[in-house]
Amino acid sequence: MATAGKVIKCKAAVAWEPNKPLVIEKIEVAPPQANEVRIKIVATAVCRTDVHHLLENMHNDSFPVVLGHEAAGIVESVGSGVTEFQPGDKVIPMYITQCRECRFCKSPKTNQCEKGWGAGRHSVLATPDSRFTCKGKKILQFLGTSTFSEYTVVNQMAVAKIDPAAPLDKVCLIGCGVCTGYGAAVNTAKVEPGSTCAVFGLGAVGLAAVMGCKAAGAKKIIAVDINPEKFEKAKVFGATDFVNPKDHSKAISQVLSEMTNGGVDFSLECVGNVGVMRSALESCVQGWGVSVIVGWTNLEDFSARPIQLIAGRTWKGSAFGGFKGKYGIPQMVKAYLDKNLKLDEFITHNMTLDQVNDAIELMKQGKCIRTVLHVSPQ
Amino acid sequence: MATAGKVIKCKAAVAWEPNKPLVIEKIEVAPPQANEVRIKIVATAVCRTDVHHLLENMHNDSFPVVLGHEAAGIVESVGSGVTEFQPGDKVIPMYITQCRECRFCKSPKTNQCEKGWGAGRHSVLATPDSRFTCKGKKILQFLGTSTFSEYTVVNQMAVAKIDPAAPLDKVCLIGCGVCTGYGAAVNTAKVEPGSTCAVFGLGAVGLAAVMGCKAAGAKKIIAVDINPEKFEKAKVFGATDFVNPKDHSKAISQVLSEMTNGGVDFSLECVGNVGVMRSALESCVQGWGVSVIVGWTNLEDFSARPIQLIAGRTWKGSAFGGFKGKYGIPQMVKAYLDKNLKLDEFITHNMTLDQVNDAIELMKQGKCIRTVLHVSPQ
Repeated sequence: MATAGKVIKCKAAVAWEPNKPLVIEKIEVAPPQANEVRIKIVATAVCRTDVHHLLENMHNDSFPVVLGHEAAGIVESVGSGVTEFQPGDKVIPMYITQCRECRFCKSPKTNQCEKGWGAGRHSVLATPDSRFTCKGKKILQFLGTSTFSEYTVVNQMAVAKIDPAAPLDKVCLIGCGVCTGYGAAVNTAKVEPGSTCAVFGLGAVGLAAVMGCKAAGAKKIIAVDINPEKFEKAKVFGATDFVNPKDHSKAISQVLSEMTNGGVDFSLECVGNVGVMRSALESCVQGWGVSVIVGWTNLEDFSARPIQLIAGRTWKGSAFGGFKGKYGIPQMVKAYLDKNLKLDEFITHNMTLDQVNDAIELMKQGKCIRTVLHVSPQ
Repeated sequence: MATAGKVIKCKAAVAWEPNKPLVIEKIEVAPPQANEVRIKIVATAVCRTDVHHLLENMHNDSFPVVLGHEAAGIVESVGSGVTEFQPGDKVIPMYITQCRECRFCKSPKTNQCEKGWGAGRHSVLATPDSRFTCKGKKILQFLGTSTFSEYTVVNQMAVAKIDPAAPLDKVCLIGCGVCTGYGAAVNTAKVEPGSTCAVFGLGAVGLAAVMGCKAAGAKKIIAVDINPEKFEKAKVFGATDFVNPKDHSKAISQVLSEMTNGGVDFSLECVGNVGVMRSALESCVQGWGVSVIVGWTNLEDFSARPIQLIAGRTWKGSAFGGFKGKYGIPQMVKAYLDKNLKLDEFITHNMTLDQVNDAIELMKQGKCIRTVLHVSPQ
């Protein structure tokens, strides 16, 4: 390509400081260094974690930053040592790396990787190294990705190659929310056929968890949200029962216990709220109930009484639904192309990158499931 | 027997009120009703849960009570409908019942039982029904057992028959502490061969957990206690490394992480302290670390930051080490008789029932591992 080896000047949405609107800027994107891949972002969705970082992350060392991590694009050029990708490949960036060499990558038990952002910067979420500059300043990369930009550079450990037939403005959702929820049910909770499940929070992650529960063969899937407008959508993904905690004076765990003869087999917290995490655990049946923390927050402790676990419940968590990205992402894309996975139903709004602040506002107000920003032509 | 069908007057240690010494009294023990078994207690050990209940349970509705739940004895008589036991059988009372009929008993996933004390009285631990009276007052039964008495009556769901060759003043330990710790490692954590483990708290439960880790093939077993006098004993049970948190200025999780290249595969909290529960979780490696809450307390919440679980750790708990008593207890007794399980090494003191307050004092001061009270001749 004509741009290979050169700095690309392109449009990106820069978060200069916390809790302020993003600013559309011209930024410089350096060429990929060794083992790196420069990607033209075709479509990126806005995930709650982007908004969370913007509004609630008070670490000054994580700004200015380009947010965005749920995206799909096309390889523009590759750095030295990259053999897995070539220009023109359709790809999805991964915010959890897969180096294939560390003890985590070699274990079937986890999708963590020693090389990734997860190695110690949970409080910040922005990688210290970056290929972005704007007005002479270094701009950080969020979760090692940064997809609210026409171009980004990521390590080859953080890229999954996908089917060339994939429509990027749909499969971008596989880059975070859909895998996170679906995998939490299938890979982390390991939902069993005939089981009863409860999903707390019906954003994209929660709806994907509902879909995962259904795919795993759950017979009862209770969708819980304080916004009853979400119930109709949850039904589309497979929910069988619907509970609005505001309709009940008693604890939601008590309500679910009565609906299920003592509690659900599996519960998934898809909000990122420590109070909901507790409710989700307490809604599980003693003896074998498994509760999974899926929603992201790390500003407060979660807590419960010891008897909850001593009586036989298990508390787990997962990131990116436990998927090892280089294997899981292409499989999920294939499932969509084979019509075994819903994606279109998550997309409530389509916008351009220039409208990113409108998309963030929709997310803050709970008025969207997913807004896809169309960044570049496919 | 001459006593069958009659009220037995015998000696028992009665806790008339919280936080007061027990009083040796003559109590009346009613004959077993339908499906019940009256047992002559030969030996009972003092467990921290007895002391915990006496000192920290502020529920007035759980006194007066006869404490004690880790014991072995001989069947004196049986009520109608009991075919599994007959007078003369050597038995161990079970504080977790096994009715064999409920959905928990029928599941291989759990040792909980819908019929037992666990069905809702965790805060009290004393069963509302009782066969004891003293001075005209009903005396409650602790955990459905009450073994600080020459005789007790328990439901047949709460009794395990053991090998007639078993020495009751040793195998009484299988009634609680040894199974709790050993099973937490083997059944709940499912410690794997070649793994690294940390055991927090080196009382009888912790030492049994060390023994369980060793039996499961762990290659590194780190024993953690603020009382270094316990380390020698831990070595006997298989511990390979020893850490006294008081020797370090940094967090114990950091110390263990440095000793193990990122954290242990399995940790077991055998203290019953919510701060230690947190340390035990944080000492696990991300990705697949499993932490099990074994120590009993329910007065406070345990807590941690969400990232601890989101990064792939699992938090579990277990009661009685996950053993279904009617199956597990005879197996553990056999293991002892076959010299595949240590018991004698736990016993630091032997006393009579009259000395129960001295035994409790030793436990409070951390000066014993297990004191066995010899209640009746074998």
